[in-house]
Amino acid sequence: MTSPEQFTGYAAFEQQHDVFNLKAHTYIPRPFTEKDVDVRILASGICGSDVHILRSGWSQSKYPAIVGHEIVGEVVRAGSDSGHQLGDMVAFGAQCDSCGSCETCKNQLENYCRKKWTATYQGSLGKGAYTQGGYADYYRGPGRFAIKFPKGLDPVTHCSLLCGGVTVYAPLKAYGAGPGKRVGVVGIGGLGHLGLQFSKALGAETYALTHSASKEKDALALGAKKVIVTKDQKAVLAEYAGFFDIIICTSFQPNMPLSSFYLPLLKPRGNFILNGLPEEDLPPMKPQSILGKSLTGSLIGSPAEIEEMFEVAVKHGVKPWVTTYPMDKAGEAVTAMHEGKARYRFVLVPK
Amino acid sequence: MTSPEQFTGYAAFEQQHDVFNLKAHTYIPRPFTEKDVDVRILASGICGSDVHILRSGWSQSKYPAIVGHEIVGEVVRAGSDSGHQLGDMVAFGAQCDSCGSCETCKNQLENYCRKKWTATYQGSLGKGAYTQGGYADYYRGPGRFAIKFPKGLDPVTHCSLLCGGVTVYAPLKAYGAGPGKRVGVVGIGGLGHLGLQFSKALGAETYALTHSASKEKDALALGAKKVIVTKDQKAVLAEYAGFFDIIICTSFQPNMPLSSFYLPLLKPRGNFILNGLPEEDLPPMKPQSILGKSLTGSLIGSPAEIEEMFEVAVKHGVKPWVTTYPMDKAGEAVTAMHEGKARYRFVLVPK
Repeated sequence: MTSPEQFTGYAAFEQQHDVFNLKAHTYIPRPFTEKDVDVRILASGICGSDVHILRSGWSQSKYPAIVGHEIVGEVVRAGSDSGHQLGDMVAFGAQCDSCGSCETCKNQLENYCRKKWTATYQGSLGKGAYTQGGYADYYRGPGRFAIKFPKGLDPVTHCSLLCGGVTVYAPLKAYGAGPGKRVGVVGIGGLGHLGLQFSKALGAETYALTHSASKEKDALALGAKKVIVTKDQKAVLAEYAGFFDIIICTSFQPNMPLSSFYLPLLKPRGNFILNGLPEEDLPPMKPQSILGKSLTGSLIGSPAEIEEMFEVAVKHGVKPWVTTYPMDKAGEAVTAMHEGKARYRFVLVPK
Repeated sequence: MTSPEQFTGYAAFEQQHDVFNLKAHTYIPRPFTEKDVDVRILASGICGSDVHILRSGWSQSKYPAIVGHEIVGEVVRAGSDSGHQLGDMVAFGAQCDSCGSCETCKNQLENYCRKKWTATYQGSLGKGAYTQGGYADYYRGPGRFAIKFPKGLDPVTHCSLLCGGVTVYAPLKAYGAGPGKRVGVVGIGGLGHLGLQFSKALGAETYALTHSASKEKDALALGAKKVIVTKDQKAVLAEYAGFFDIIICTSFQPNMPLSSFYLPLLKPRGNFILNGLPEEDLPPMKPQSILGKSLTGSLIGSPAEIEEMFEVAVKHGVKPWVTTYPMDKAGEAVTAMHEGKARYRFVLVPK
């Protein structure tokens, strides 16, 4: 069991728009070190960030671009200092490296390391080189970021936890979702459908907040006690002002009514958690809207949080709702994702 | 020992500007109930809010206006259901009543009650009537908001804790200031000089952040480990980015560099705490500036937090730096306060 000298993935060769054209691309990975593992990929989730990067949505992406950062695979080459063995099942999320020595890393919040945050794909390797991601046959990365994938989870079903899952799990846990707490999940989509499950798994009374009632049945099946349709904000405020301990927002809009609607739904000492990294400024905010409350940002999770999330997923049967595509249909799958067709995550599976 | 039928205070009879003209005003307090106490005022602190209200700074104030919400006095009339006895030393802060029955009140966060938040002065009593404050001989209020004033504190020296103190103490405590934590206090003034003391009393490593070095000596004497002059933001960021667990901001400016300077100084999971209620919108914010961090608002503190703060003040010798004025010089004192002359709080003392 070992890895080839070259890896092959499905890459965009230029900026993509609405129809994604991903073609086979063979590349030589960076030199292997004793801290690394190579994994043979068994499943690779499609994440909203992938779409963003392929479209150069945050900034100019580097092409050819192989994306994919919800990777589960088998270790086929293990550096002596990698912490892993041949045959181990491991997973990589959206981050594959950090400095490892700053206070933030030492506090096991590597996802906020400011010194050497290396992304699983498009991450700088110096001298213009960059990491390629998981829409591929193999992935090479530091063993420190290869998280043991538990026997109780399935690579295809659960790979979406690596980014989509921990993005909601980490802040829910950090800000106290649990018994006696009320959590509102804004948006029932790729992240939201995991937010509902993890919130319930952590023991919180969980509500879905959504623009339309069309996903009500899904939300209830995913663990929501109730679905609150937010179309009539005045009516919702009349019933739910000061109600939630946590609101986790998985569907940011630059014109969302943060000050006039969402923050007033929080209890004192509550947190409105904004997931991820919108391109736009936050909506203007009135000081009175955050009196006794917090607006909190959150970005993915750390290796320790991913490990902990796996335990919670095993224990409580958290299960992403996924549709699979063969790996060589990656372009088609991303196009469908971009069109909003996922209910609720897509996963690429190699032949 | 009892209270008179009419109370006399020093009131503004119309909107004030830069020179404050407060004249004796005798009024009939609202009817006494068995839940109330009357206190003979022994000391009454001057707070920034007083200046604001006298100038109709937030909205049109009601005149005649007797302000003052840092009141320490002796109970001279005690309702049977007030929880107090004649002769008790008690204190009133900025809030004198709340609904008492909502979830927020039951959780002892009455300062965020949305149902019946009654201010110590200018608070609605229905039918156009309103409360008058502590620049006076007596104060009448619900015993539930009359906090036992401990023997270890002095009315004149410590009355400023009632608003200025708890405004910084409550969020510092709530958001985890303590051993192993680093706290930055922005602004060395009425609130900031108490923030430094309470942060240190709670066991946190405490820093003062200030525009100019002129108050450095004071800040060190007040408990700062170090004074960080924020004039050269780039240099400060180079040294202190990701450094603080908590930054408590006692000197809001609508154009303050929140996204580009203050939030980057926080560690992951840190809180930037904005004290009080600025009139202007918050500065525009970039989503990346709050990744892993929280922007948190805070307004005074609850009766339970005031009680707890008193204990901390006794135990650690927290002591406001005050200058006293005789009560009948209230106008002169407020004028000096408005001119920024307080180092760091003014207190009115009856003859």
